[in-house]
Amino acid sequence: MRELFQTELDALREQLGDMCAQAAEAMRAATRAVLTADGELAARVVAADAELDVARDRCDDTAQRLLALQAPVAGDLRLVLTAVHCSDKIERMGDLAAHIADTARIRQPERVVPAELTDAFTALGTITAAMADRLVELIRDPGKGGFAELNETDQDVDARHVGVLETITREDWPHGIPSATSLALLVRYYERFADQAVSVAKRLDFVVTGVMAA
Amino acid sequence: MRELFQTELDALREQLGDMCAQAAEAMRAATRAVLTADGELAARVVAADAELDVARDRCDDTAQRLLALQAPVAGDLRLVLTAVHCSDKIERMGDLAAHIADTARIRQPERVVPAELTDAFTALGTITAAMADRLVELIRDPGKGGFAELNETDQDVDARHVGVLETITREDWPHGIPSATSLALLVRYYERFADQAVSVAKRLDFVVTGVMAA
Repeated sequence: MRELFQTELDALREQLGDMCAQAAEAMRAATRAVLTADGELAARVVAADAELDVARDRCDDTAQRLLALQAPVAGDLRLVLTAVHCSDKIERMGDLAAHIADTARIRQPERVVPAELTDAFTALGTITAAMADRLVELIRDPGKGGFAELNETDQDVDARHVGVLETITREDWPHGIPSATSLALLVRYYERFADQAVSVAKRLDFVVTGVMAA
Repeated sequence: MRELFQTELDALREQLGDMCAQAAEAMRAATRAVLTADGELAARVVAADAELDVARDRCDDTAQRLLALQAPVAGDLRLVLTAVHCSDKIERMGDLAAHIADTARIRQPERVVPAELTDAFTALGTITAAMADRLVELIRDPGKGGFAELNETDQDVDARHVGVLETITREDWPHGIPSATSLALLVRYYERFADQAVSVAKRLDFVVTGVMAA
Protein backbone atom coordinates (compact mmCIF):
# COMPACT_ATOMS: atom_id res chain seq x y z
CA MET A 1 0.00 0.00 0.00
CA ARG A 2 2.67 2.44 1.10
CA GLU A 3 4.74 1.53 -1.94
CA LEU A 4 1.86 2.17 -4.32
CA PHE A 5 1.26 5.47 -2.57
CA GLN A 6 4.89 6.50 -3.06
CA THR A 7 4.64 5.59 -6.74
CA GLU A 8 1.56 7.78 -7.11
CA LEU A 9 3.23 10.68 -5.26
CA ASP A 10 6.23 10.35 -7.57
CA ALA A 11 3.89 10.38 -10.56
CA LEU A 12 2.27 13.58 -9.27
CA ARG A 13 5.68 15.18 -8.87
CA GLU A 14 6.65 14.06 -12.36
CA GLN A 15 3.45 15.52 -13.82
CA LEU A 16 4.09 18.89 -12.19
CA GLY A 17 7.68 18.93 -13.40
CA ASP A 18 6.59 18.11 -16.95
CA MET A 19 4.05 20.95 -16.83
CA CYS A 20 6.77 23.41 -15.80
CA ALA A 21 9.10 22.21 -18.53
CA GLN A 22 6.28 22.73 -21.01
CA ALA A 23 5.62 26.26 -19.68
CA ALA A 24 9.34 27.07 -20.04
CA GLU A 25 9.37 25.83 -23.62
CA ALA A 26 6.16 27.76 -24.41
CA MET A 27 7.70 30.95 -23.03
CA ARG A 28 10.86 30.50 -25.09
CA ALA A 29 8.92 29.81 -28.31
CA ALA A 30 6.44 32.65 -27.63
CA THR A 31 9.27 35.13 -27.16
CA ARG A 32 10.95 33.94 -30.36
CA ALA A 33 7.63 34.30 -32.20
CA VAL A 34 7.03 37.80 -30.88
CA LEU A 35 10.56 39.00 -31.65
CA THR A 36 10.66 37.59 -35.18
CA ALA A 37 6.96 38.14 -36.03
CA ASP A 38 6.71 34.41 -36.76
CA GLY A 39 2.97 33.81 -37.08
CA GLU A 40 3.26 30.06 -37.63
CA LEU A 41 5.37 29.50 -34.54
CA ALA A 42 2.98 31.74 -32.58
CA ALA A 43 -0.02 29.68 -33.70
CA ARG A 44 1.74 26.47 -32.63
CA VAL A 45 2.39 27.90 -29.14
CA VAL A 46 -1.25 28.96 -28.81
CA ALA A 47 -2.48 25.53 -29.95
CA ALA A 48 -0.09 23.66 -27.64
CA ASP A 49 -1.51 25.45 -24.60
CA ALA A 50 -4.49 23.09 -24.58
CA GLU A 51 -2.06 20.30 -23.56
CA LEU A 52 -1.23 22.17 -20.36
CA ASP A 53 -4.93 22.42 -19.54
CA VAL A 54 -5.24 18.66 -19.94
CA ALA A 55 -2.10 18.12 -17.83
CA ARG A 56 -3.56 20.30 -15.08
CA ASP A 57 -6.78 18.28 -15.03
CA ARG A 58 -4.77 15.04 -14.92
CA CYS A 59 -2.76 16.40 -12.01
CA ASP A 60 -5.99 17.27 -10.20
CA ASP A 61 -7.33 13.77 -10.82
CA THR A 62 -4.18 12.18 -9.44
CA ALA A 63 -4.33 14.42 -6.37
CA GLN A 64 -8.00 13.66 -5.80
CA ARG A 65 -7.44 9.91 -6.14
CA LEU A 66 -4.52 10.07 -3.70
CA LEU A 67 -6.59 11.98 -1.16
CA ALA A 68 -9.61 9.70 -1.50
CA LEU A 69 -7.76 6.39 -1.43
CA GLN A 70 -4.71 7.08 0.72
CA ALA A 71 -5.75 9.89 3.07
CA PRO A 72 -2.18 11.21 3.35
CA VAL A 73 -1.06 13.29 6.34
CA ALA A 74 1.78 15.69 7.22
CA GLY A 75 4.43 16.11 4.51
CA ASP A 76 2.63 13.81 2.05
CA LEU A 77 -0.58 15.80 2.44
CA ARG A 78 1.37 19.03 1.96
CA LEU A 79 2.81 17.67 -1.27
CA VAL A 80 -0.61 16.70 -2.62
CA LEU A 81 -2.13 20.07 -1.69
CA THR A 82 0.86 21.85 -3.18
CA ALA A 83 0.31 19.99 -6.43
CA VAL A 84 -3.33 21.13 -6.42
CA HIS A 85 -2.28 24.76 -5.98
CA CYS A 86 0.71 24.62 -8.32
CA SER A 87 -0.97 22.88 -11.24
CA ASP A 88 -3.31 25.90 -11.45
CA LYS A 89 -0.41 28.33 -11.39
CA ILE A 90 1.66 26.46 -13.95
CA GLU A 91 -1.35 26.15 -16.24
CA ARG A 92 -1.66 29.95 -15.90
CA MET A 93 2.02 30.35 -16.86
CA GLY A 94 1.15 28.48 -20.05
CA ASP A 95 -1.80 30.83 -20.65
CA LEU A 96 0.49 33.85 -20.32
CA ALA A 97 3.02 32.40 -22.78
CA ALA A 98 0.09 31.74 -25.13
CA HIS A 99 -1.06 35.37 -24.72
CA ILE A 100 2.44 36.51 -25.74
CA ALA A 101 2.35 34.23 -28.78
CA ASP A 102 -1.16 35.36 -29.61
CA THR A 103 -0.02 39.00 -29.68
CA ALA A 104 2.56 37.98 -32.31
CA ARG A 105 -0.01 35.93 -34.24
CA ILE A 106 -2.59 38.73 -34.41
CA ARG A 107 -0.13 41.44 -35.40
CA GLN A 108 2.09 39.54 -37.87
CA PRO A 109 3.65 40.30 -40.34
CA GLU A 110 4.11 43.50 -38.33
CA ARG A 111 6.66 43.30 -35.48
CA VAL A 112 5.10 44.09 -32.11
CA VAL A 113 8.45 44.83 -30.45
CA PRO A 114 10.34 47.76 -32.02
CA ALA A 115 14.13 47.63 -32.38
CA GLU A 116 14.86 49.70 -29.25
CA LEU A 117 13.01 47.17 -27.07
CA THR A 118 14.33 43.95 -28.64
CA ASP A 119 17.02 43.53 -25.99
CA ALA A 120 14.55 44.16 -23.17
CA PHE A 121 12.08 41.52 -24.38
CA THR A 122 14.85 39.04 -25.26
CA ALA A 123 16.07 39.31 -21.67
CA LEU A 124 12.55 39.01 -20.23
CA GLY A 125 11.95 35.86 -22.28
CA THR A 126 15.26 34.31 -21.26
CA ILE A 127 14.90 35.13 -17.56
CA THR A 128 11.30 34.04 -17.17
CA ALA A 129 11.81 30.77 -19.10
CA ALA A 130 14.83 30.09 -16.87
CA MET A 131 12.59 30.59 -13.82
CA ALA A 132 10.31 27.84 -15.13
CA ASP A 133 13.39 25.63 -15.79
CA ARG A 134 14.49 26.17 -12.21
CA LEU A 135 11.05 25.10 -10.99
CA VAL A 136 11.47 21.81 -12.86
CA GLU A 137 14.65 21.19 -10.84
CA LEU A 138 13.04 22.27 -7.56
CA ILE A 139 10.07 19.99 -8.16
CA ARG A 140 12.20 16.97 -9.04
CA ASP A 141 14.79 17.49 -6.32
CA PRO A 142 13.18 19.65 -3.66
CA GLY A 143 15.42 21.58 -1.30
CA LYS A 144 14.81 24.61 0.79
CA GLY A 145 15.49 28.03 -0.70
CA GLY A 146 13.78 28.09 -4.09
CA PHE A 147 11.42 30.83 -3.02
CA ALA A 148 14.17 33.26 -1.94
CA GLU A 149 16.06 32.61 -5.16
CA LEU A 150 13.12 33.07 -7.52
CA ASN A 151 11.89 36.04 -5.54
CA GLU A 152 15.20 37.75 -6.22
CA THR A 153 14.96 36.99 -9.94
CA ASP A 154 11.42 38.34 -9.86
CA GLN A 155 12.70 41.70 -8.63
CA ASP A 156 14.92 41.86 -11.70
CA VAL A 157 11.89 41.09 -13.89
CA ASP A 158 9.87 43.80 -12.11
CA ALA A 159 12.64 46.36 -12.75
CA ARG A 160 12.73 45.44 -16.45
CA HIS A 161 8.93 45.65 -16.59
CA VAL A 162 9.08 49.19 -15.17
CA GLY A 163 11.86 50.06 -17.65
CA VAL A 164 9.68 49.05 -20.61
CA LEU A 165 6.71 51.03 -19.24
CA GLU A 166 8.93 54.08 -18.90
CA THR A 167 10.15 53.73 -22.48
CA ILE A 168 6.71 53.38 -24.04
CA THR A 169 5.22 56.31 -22.10
CA ARG A 170 8.01 58.78 -22.92
CA GLU A 171 6.85 61.99 -24.62
CA ASP A 172 8.94 61.19 -27.69
CA TRP A 173 7.71 57.57 -28.15
CA PRO A 174 7.61 57.35 -31.96
CA HIS A 175 5.45 54.24 -32.54
CA GLY A 176 1.98 55.50 -31.60
CA ILE A 177 -0.66 54.47 -29.08
CA PRO A 178 -1.69 51.01 -30.38
CA SER A 179 1.95 49.96 -30.20
CA ALA A 180 2.34 51.37 -26.67
CA THR A 181 -0.82 49.67 -25.35
CA SER A 182 0.16 46.33 -26.95
CA LEU A 183 3.57 46.55 -25.35
CA ALA A 184 2.13 47.51 -21.95
CA LEU A 185 0.03 44.34 -21.97
CA LEU A 186 2.81 42.23 -23.48
CA VAL A 187 5.33 43.16 -20.80
CA ARG A 188 2.72 42.49 -18.14
CA TYR A 189 2.39 38.90 -19.38
CA TYR A 190 6.10 38.39 -18.65
CA GLU A 191 5.77 40.01 -15.25
CA ARG A 192 2.79 37.82 -14.33
CA PHE A 193 4.57 34.67 -15.58
CA ALA A 194 7.41 35.48 -13.18
CA ASP A 195 4.92 36.12 -10.34
CA GLN A 196 3.34 32.71 -10.86
CA ALA A 197 6.77 31.06 -10.87
CA VAL A 198 7.57 32.71 -7.51
CA SER A 199 4.27 31.58 -6.14
CA VAL A 200 4.99 27.97 -7.19
CA ALA A 201 8.43 28.17 -5.55
CA LYS A 202 6.82 29.43 -2.35
CA ARG A 203 4.47 26.44 -2.27
CA LEU A 204 7.36 24.05 -2.97
CA ASP A 205 9.29 25.43 0.00
CA PHE A 206 6.18 24.78 2.08
CA VAL A 207 6.31 21.07 1.19
CA VAL A 208 9.82 20.85 2.61
CA THR A 209 9.53 23.20 5.60
CA GLY A 210 5.86 23.03 6.55
CA VAL A 211 6.01 26.82 6.90
CA MET A 212 4.62 29.22 4.31
CA ALA A 213 6.85 32.22 3.53
CA ALA A 214 5.24 35.62 4.15
CA MET B 1 -17.40 12.73 14.35
CA ARG B 2 -19.59 13.15 11.30
CA GLU B 3 -21.32 16.10 12.97
CA LEU B 4 -18.02 17.83 13.71
CA PHE B 5 -16.99 17.21 10.12
CA GLN B 6 -20.17 18.81 8.81
CA THR B 7 -19.56 21.83 11.06
CA GLU B 8 -16.05 22.21 9.66
CA LEU B 9 -17.29 21.86 6.07
CA ASP B 10 -19.89 24.55 6.77
CA ALA B 11 -17.17 26.76 8.23
CA LEU B 12 -15.09 26.30 5.07
CA ARG B 13 -18.07 27.24 2.92
CA GLU B 14 -18.73 30.27 5.12
CA GLN B 15 -15.09 31.38 4.83
CA LEU B 16 -15.19 31.15 1.04
CA GLY B 17 -18.46 33.10 0.90
CA ASP B 18 -17.03 35.83 3.14
CA MET B 19 -13.97 36.08 0.90
CA CYS B 20 -16.18 36.58 -2.16
CA ALA B 21 -18.28 39.21 -0.38
CA GLN B 22 -15.07 41.01 0.50
CA ALA B 23 -13.84 40.84 -3.12
CA ALA B 24 -17.18 42.28 -4.30
CA GLU B 25 -16.92 45.14 -1.84
CA ALA B 26 -13.28 45.79 -2.80
CA MET B 27 -14.26 45.96 -6.48
CA ARG B 28 -17.08 48.41 -5.78
CA ALA B 29 -14.88 50.67 -3.64
CA ALA B 30 -11.95 50.47 -6.10
CA THR B 31 -14.20 51.50 -8.99
CA ARG B 32 -15.58 54.41 -6.95
CA ALA B 33 -12.02 55.46 -6.08
CA VAL B 34 -10.85 55.30 -9.69
CA LEU B 35 -13.87 57.20 -11.04
CA THR B 36 -13.73 59.97 -8.44
CA ALA B 37 -9.92 60.10 -8.04
CA ASP B 38 -10.42 59.45 -4.32
CA GLY B 39 -6.90 58.71 -3.07
CA GLU B 40 -7.96 58.00 0.52
CA LEU B 41 -10.58 55.46 -0.46
CA ALA B 42 -8.08 53.90 -2.86
CA ALA B 43 -5.48 53.56 -0.11
CA ARG B 44 -8.07 51.88 2.15
CA VAL B 45 -8.90 49.32 -0.57
CA VAL B 46 -5.21 48.56 -1.09
CA ALA B 47 -4.64 48.16 2.67
CA ALA B 48 -7.72 45.96 3.14
CA ASP B 49 -6.41 43.46 0.58
CA ALA B 50 -4.09 41.98 3.21
CA GLU B 51 -7.21 40.66 4.97
CA LEU B 52 -8.07 38.54 1.94
CA ASP B 53 -4.56 37.06 1.98
CA VAL B 54 -5.08 36.06 5.61
CA ALA B 55 -8.54 34.67 4.81
CA ARG B 56 -7.05 32.56 2.01
CA ASP B 57 -4.44 31.12 4.35
CA ARG B 58 -7.12 30.37 6.95
CA CYS B 59 -9.19 28.61 4.30
CA ASP B 60 -6.16 26.53 3.34
CA ASP B 61 -5.57 25.63 6.98
CA THR B 62 -9.17 24.53 7.42
CA ALA B 63 -8.99 22.46 4.23
CA GLN B 64 -5.73 20.84 5.27
CA ARG B 65 -7.06 20.00 8.75
CA LEU B 66 -10.21 18.49 7.23
CA LEU B 67 -8.18 16.34 4.85
CA ALA B 68 -5.74 15.21 7.53
CA LEU B 69 -8.29 14.42 10.25
CA GLN B 70 -11.40 13.38 8.33
CA ALA B 71 -10.13 11.95 5.05
CA PRO B 72 -13.29 12.95 3.17
CA VAL B 73 -14.36 11.19 -0.03
CA ALA B 74 -16.69 11.84 -2.99
CA GLY B 75 -18.72 15.06 -2.76
CA ASP B 76 -17.13 16.13 0.54
CA LEU B 77 -13.65 15.71 -0.92
CA ARG B 78 -14.71 17.67 -4.00
CA LEU B 79 -15.91 20.50 -1.76
CA VAL B 80 -12.63 20.63 0.16
CA LEU B 81 -10.55 20.57 -3.03
CA THR B 82 -12.80 23.20 -4.55
CA ALA B 83 -12.18 25.42 -1.54
CA VAL B 84 -8.43 24.99 -2.02
CA HIS B 85 -8.69 26.04 -5.68
CA CYS B 86 -11.23 28.81 -5.13
CA SER B 87 -9.56 30.51 -2.19
CA ASP B 88 -6.59 31.20 -4.49
CA LYS B 89 -8.83 32.61 -7.20
CA ILE B 90 -10.86 34.79 -4.84
CA GLU B 91 -7.68 36.11 -3.25
CA ARG B 92 -6.57 37.00 -6.78
CA MET B 93 -9.88 38.84 -7.36
CA GLY B 94 -8.97 40.93 -4.32
CA ASP B 95 -5.51 41.61 -5.78
CA LEU B 96 -7.07 42.84 -9.02
CA ALA B 97 -9.47 45.17 -7.17
CA ALA B 98 -6.43 46.44 -5.23
CA HIS B 99 -4.57 47.03 -8.52
CA ILE B 100 -7.51 49.13 -9.72
CA ALA B 101 -7.49 51.12 -6.48
CA ASP B 102 -3.72 51.48 -6.66
CA THR B 103 -3.99 53.01 -10.12
CA ALA B 104 -6.29 55.65 -8.61
CA ARG B 105 -3.98 56.14 -5.61
CA ILE B 106 -0.84 56.66 -7.70
CA ARG B 107 -2.44 59.03 -10.19
CA GLN B 108 -4.65 61.17 -7.88
CA PRO B 109 -5.59 64.01 -7.89
CA GLU B 110 -5.62 63.35 -11.64
CA ARG B 111 -8.55 61.27 -12.93
CA VAL B 112 -7.38 58.09 -14.67
CA VAL B 113 -10.69 57.60 -16.50
CA PRO B 114 -11.61 60.45 -18.88
CA ALA B 115 -15.24 61.58 -19.20
CA GLU B 116 -15.94 59.58 -22.38
CA LEU B 117 -15.07 56.31 -20.60
CA THR B 118 -16.83 56.97 -17.28
CA ASP B 119 -19.92 55.00 -18.30
CA ALA B 120 -17.84 52.07 -19.55
CA PHE B 121 -15.87 51.74 -16.31
CA THR B 122 -18.96 52.33 -14.14
CA ALA B 123 -20.63 49.42 -15.93
CA LEU B 124 -17.53 47.21 -15.65
CA GLY B 125 -17.34 47.89 -11.90
CA THR B 126 -21.03 47.16 -11.38
CA ILE B 127 -21.08 44.00 -13.46
CA THR B 128 -17.91 42.45 -12.06
CA ALA B 129 -18.86 43.22 -8.42
CA ALA B 130 -22.27 41.64 -9.11
CA MET B 131 -20.46 38.52 -10.37
CA ALA B 132 -18.70 38.27 -7.00
CA ASP B 133 -22.04 38.83 -5.22
CA ARG B 134 -23.54 35.98 -7.23
CA LEU B 135 -20.66 33.73 -6.18
CA VAL B 136 -21.52 34.42 -2.53
CA GLU B 137 -25.03 33.09 -3.21
CA LEU B 138 -23.75 30.10 -5.19
CA ILE B 139 -21.31 29.19 -2.41
CA ARG B 140 -23.92 29.46 0.34
CA ASP B 141 -26.69 27.73 -1.58
CA PRO B 142 -25.09 25.67 -4.30
CA GLY B 143 -27.16 24.65 -7.30
CA LYS B 144 -26.21 23.62 -10.77
CA GLY B 145 -25.86 26.29 -13.42
CA GLY B 146 -23.68 29.05 -11.92
CA PHE B 147 -20.94 28.46 -14.46
CA ALA B 148 -23.20 28.92 -17.51
CA GLU B 149 -24.68 32.08 -15.99
CA LEU B 150 -21.37 33.71 -15.08
CA ASN B 151 -19.82 32.63 -18.34
CA GLU B 152 -22.53 34.58 -20.17
CA THR B 153 -21.88 37.67 -18.03
CA ASP B 154 -18.18 37.26 -18.76
CA GLN B 155 -18.85 37.54 -22.48
CA ASP B 156 -20.48 40.91 -21.81
CA VAL B 157 -17.40 41.96 -19.82
CA ASP B 158 -15.13 40.81 -22.66
CA ALA B 159 -17.10 42.88 -25.17
CA ARG B 160 -16.83 45.97 -22.96
CA HIS B 161 -13.10 45.29 -22.53
CA VAL B 162 -12.66 45.23 -26.31
CA GLY B 163 -14.75 48.42 -26.59
CA VAL B 164 -12.43 50.29 -24.22
CA LEU B 165 -9.34 49.04 -26.09
CA GLU B 166 -10.84 50.25 -29.36
CA THR B 167 -11.55 53.69 -27.89
CA ILE B 168 -8.07 54.21 -26.44
CA THR B 169 -6.28 53.09 -29.61
CA ARG B 170 -8.27 55.31 -31.99
CA GLU B 171 -6.19 57.69 -34.12
CA ASP B 172 -7.90 60.70 -32.55
CA TRP B 173 -7.47 59.62 -28.88
CA PRO B 174 -6.84 63.02 -27.24
CA HIS B 175 -5.36 62.01 -23.85
CA GLY B 176 -1.89 60.80 -24.81
CA ILE B 177 0.03 57.55 -24.42
CA PRO B 178 0.45 57.35 -20.61
CA SER B 179 -3.33 57.63 -20.27
CA ALA B 180 -3.93 54.97 -22.94
CA THR B 181 -1.47 52.49 -21.40
CA SER B 182 -2.92 53.03 -17.89
CA LEU B 183 -6.41 52.41 -19.22
CA ALA B 184 -5.30 49.30 -21.16
CA LEU B 185 -4.00 47.79 -17.92
CA LEU B 186 -6.93 49.07 -15.85
CA VAL B 187 -9.55 47.51 -18.11
CA ARG B 188 -7.60 44.27 -18.09
CA TYR B 189 -7.92 44.10 -14.28
CA TYR B 190 -11.71 44.10 -14.68
CA GLU B 191 -11.55 41.45 -17.38
CA ARG B 192 -9.30 39.22 -15.25
CA PHE B 193 -11.54 39.70 -12.20
CA ALA B 194 -14.47 38.42 -14.28
CA ASP B 195 -12.36 35.47 -15.55
CA GLN B 196 -11.53 34.45 -11.98
CA ALA B 197 -15.21 34.66 -11.01
CA VAL B 198 -16.13 32.34 -13.90
CA SER B 199 -13.41 29.97 -12.86
CA VAL B 200 -14.77 29.87 -9.28
CA ALA B 201 -18.28 29.21 -10.61
CA LYS B 202 -16.93 26.35 -12.72
CA ARG B 203 -15.37 24.74 -9.65
CA LEU B 204 -18.58 25.22 -7.65
CA ASP B 205 -20.57 23.41 -10.34
CA PHE B 206 -18.06 20.60 -10.04
CA VAL B 207 -18.90 20.18 -6.33
CA VAL B 208 -22.53 19.60 -7.22
CA THR B 209 -22.18 17.61 -10.44
CA GLY B 210 -18.82 15.85 -10.06
CA VAL B 211 -18.15 16.85 -13.67
CA MET B 212 -15.87 19.71 -14.67
CA ALA B 213 -17.22 21.93 -17.46
CA ALA B 214 -15.02 22.16 -20.54
